[in-house]
Amino acid sequence: MEKKVIRVLEKILNVNDRIADELRQDLKEKGVLYLNLMSSPGSGKTSLLERTSSFFPEIISVIEGDIQTTLDAERLEAVGITSFQINTGAFGGDCHLEAGWISSALEELELKKGDLLFVENIGNLVCPAEFDVGAHLNGVVLSVTEGEDKPLKYPLAFRNSQFCLISKLDLLPYLDIDLQRMMDNVLQINPDMDIIKISSKTGEGIEDWINFLQEKKY
Amino acid sequence: MEKKVIRVLEKILNVNDRIADELRQDLKEKGVLYLNLMSSPGSGKTSLLERTSSFFPEIISVIEGDIQTTLDAERLEAVGITSFQINTGAFGGDCHLEAGWISSALEELELKKGDLLFVENIGNLVCPAEFDVGAHLNGVVLSVTEGEDKPLKYPLAFRNSQFCLISKLDLLPYLDIDLQRMMDNVLQINPDMDIIKISSKTGEGIEDWINFLQEKKY
Repeated sequence: MEKKVIRVLEKILNVNDRIADELRQDLKEKGVLYLNLMSSPGSGKTSLLERTSSFFPEIISVIEGDIQTTLDAERLEAVGITSFQINTGAFGGDCHLEAGWISSALEELELKKGDLLFVENIGNLVCPAEFDVGAHLNGVVLSVTEGEDKPLKYPLAFRNSQFCLISKLDLLPYLDIDLQRMMDNVLQINPDMDIIKISSKTGEGIEDWINFLQEKKY
Repeated sequence: MEKKVIRVLEKILNVNDRIADELRQDLKEKGVLYLNLMSSPGSGKTSLLERTSSFFPEIISVIEGDIQTTLDAERLEAVGITSFQINTGAFGGDCHLEAGWISSALEELELKKGDLLFVENIGNLVCPAEFDVGAHLNGVVLSVTEGEDKPLKYPLAFRNSQFCLISKLDLLPYLDIDLQRMMDNVLQINPDMDIIKISSKTGEGIEDWINFLQEKKY
């Protein structure tokens, strides 16, 4: 029995990977930089996108992944970001997004050269990392409140990402946490990781993040 | 193809549910209270167990679920808690624990009447709630840093739990968060939820948690 499940899952993953590769290629040709944000629940992905929007007026689109609710999409709409909500609760409560769903969502978004497309993946440090959604860059948002050890405990998301945003810097004075050790743990899993330290609340580090996007943008 | 996957998954879930029911019954007969703790990564489950241990010397055992590392088990050992580590990374990186694995782990733990058994589930607000591990009581640990909306966005973990620990109360003064709204959202998903507000750092609310355990304990 088990063998059969594995074979079917492999087939699904193969299809996902093919669609992901097509998405990556298509959006590159179109001149749209596509970034996938992964994290635990409540790490500050939506707050970061709210902050980011004012620096890139009218060129940011977001595909929101959630099990339930359109709360995040509503927050983004309030700051003028075009967003498309995928609720996996409607089809079984999946804990990740897949490339095919992004592909369908893109039919609803009118993207043009120079645009930035973000996927705000489902708040989960495990499953989303197992499915390539076809992004040009994958990123992990890691809040300082989560503790230094998380890169070691959830290595796949860090291994499969090119950048890591360490968020909620403003809370550092109130935590027993060694920020350097947190960064060392990130680099232990992925020595090539670009690490950017930010606080969406105070704005600290946001300039570095904006420069990073400007540099990668088509 | 899809139908086949669903049928196989149902079969796996049926087996899991049967083992879960047996575990629940066996441990009840033995007089061991069995609690399953679920949460996002870094919500403070391990810190809570460290705090709890001094109130119940020599009667707490913990089964630790992680994808990788034995970091949490080592922390518990340091405060004298007997623990058993399950690393799902060894068999595919599963994002949840299953009843059968708990059943195997129990063969390694010598439990006696009056003991408390905790499962510290994998840090993930989605998948663990989909698998009954046979606990007498399921609980969610929700850190105030995660934001008020999490019960609405990840309802299953809250629906399937009997108690909710709102953690890291000490950080409240530094957050823009409405604690009452967070509690209202918990109760909106699960009106029967026992909510206990705690800070493992300052000890605030720990007495309520200990009283809760004393009351439920066999």
